Amino acid sequence: MPKVVDHEERRRELAEAVWRVIRRDGIDGASVRTVAREAGWSSGALRHYFETQSALLTFAIGLVVDRIEARIASLELPADPRAAVERLLLELLPLDEERRAENEVWLAFTGRALVDPDLRARHAELHDAQRGACLRAATVLGAHDPALEAERLHALVDGLAVHAAMRPERLAPDRIVALLRRQLASVSPRD
Amino acid sequence: MPKVVDHEERRRELAEAVWRVIRRDGIDGASVRTVAREAGWSSGALRHYFETQSALLTFAIGLVVDRIEARIASLELPADPRAAVERLLLELLPLDEERRAENEVWLAFTGRALVDPDLRARHAELHDAQRGACLRAATVLGAHDPALEAERLHALVDGLAVHAAMRPERLAPDRIVALLRRQLASVSPRD
Repeated sequence: MPKVVDHEERRRELAEAVWRVIRRDGIDGASVRTVAREAGWSSGALRHYFETQSALLTFAIGLVVDRIEARIASLELPADPRAAVERLLLELLPLDEERRAENEVWLAFTGRALVDPDLRARHAELHDAQRGACLRAATVLGAHDPALEAERLHALVDGLAVHAAMRPERLAPDRIVALLRRQLASVSPRD
Repeated sequence: MPKVVDHEERRRELAEAVWRVIRRDGIDGASVRTVAREAGWSSGALRHYFETQSALLTFAIGLVVDRIEARIASLELPADPRAAVERLLLELLPLDEERRAENEVWLAFTGRALVDPDLRARHAELHDAQRGACLRAATVLGAHDPALEAERLHALVDGLAVHAAMRPERLAPDRIVALLRRQLASVSPRD
């Protein structure tokens, strides 16, 4: 390794190696050793950045969170408020290859976050960011009970994400879009 | 071990030991050795039933599937069709301690099933059973597009299951029931 390195670039390379390993071998396979081999590093060099598997995974889920948040922040939303919330929520769904990869990593992490407090905190951060988008949508749509409707939108989005990962052959992108639109249309100001 | 054993009872004991280990340590922790210790068996005796960790986990998810299917089959449903489908779908949600345990195990398995073909097949079986219940509900409710409405109900149910596992403090059972009722009310014969 050269002595002068772009640390951000190195970290991104590592996170992408973690993702490839998780998608291929599952989260148990993402050991420091396997990820080092995938990235073309020595285990010792990788341990310089991440001492444990848990630290490595926490970093990788953090990168998923950062990417989603950055993508949402940079969205150019349509002027029409209803079109804008639809665009916002579609951003949370696995409609292209990049988001399908993120989604599979998210799902692999979800099971593990149940029992790892550090991962759980990062997972909760993403959950809250997505809930914020759903609450904004419910409010724009004039929901009588915005918190209830936000949970209903959010549960639909996450349920579709699980189904898209597990049964991709049954849930093409245009079907996902149709389901989200139907759910948005069902948000009613009447109680 | 006694020479004459009730094999079914033994297998159930083992599956419950697997569940306790997964809920405490995550799915990576559910090795043949750890599960043997939890069940009070020797690793050798356990390997007599299950040679590998994957075989052990496939058995445990199979038991979740069997339990849910048996519970649904034995449900005494109300005569009113709408009340009956509500009762049926509530059965799929983590509203008591038994179903919360099943739900956490389901979620831990979901991430792993992405990369383990045997687990994936068992996972798909449960997915299909739940989809069947949702399709029945959409049909009874007179949906214009039953397949679309079944996916929408199913995605809500699985999204609520993920949220109930990850953020139980925010999703009490009465809230889950209210959300399902609102979703059922949104199934419309109009397109």
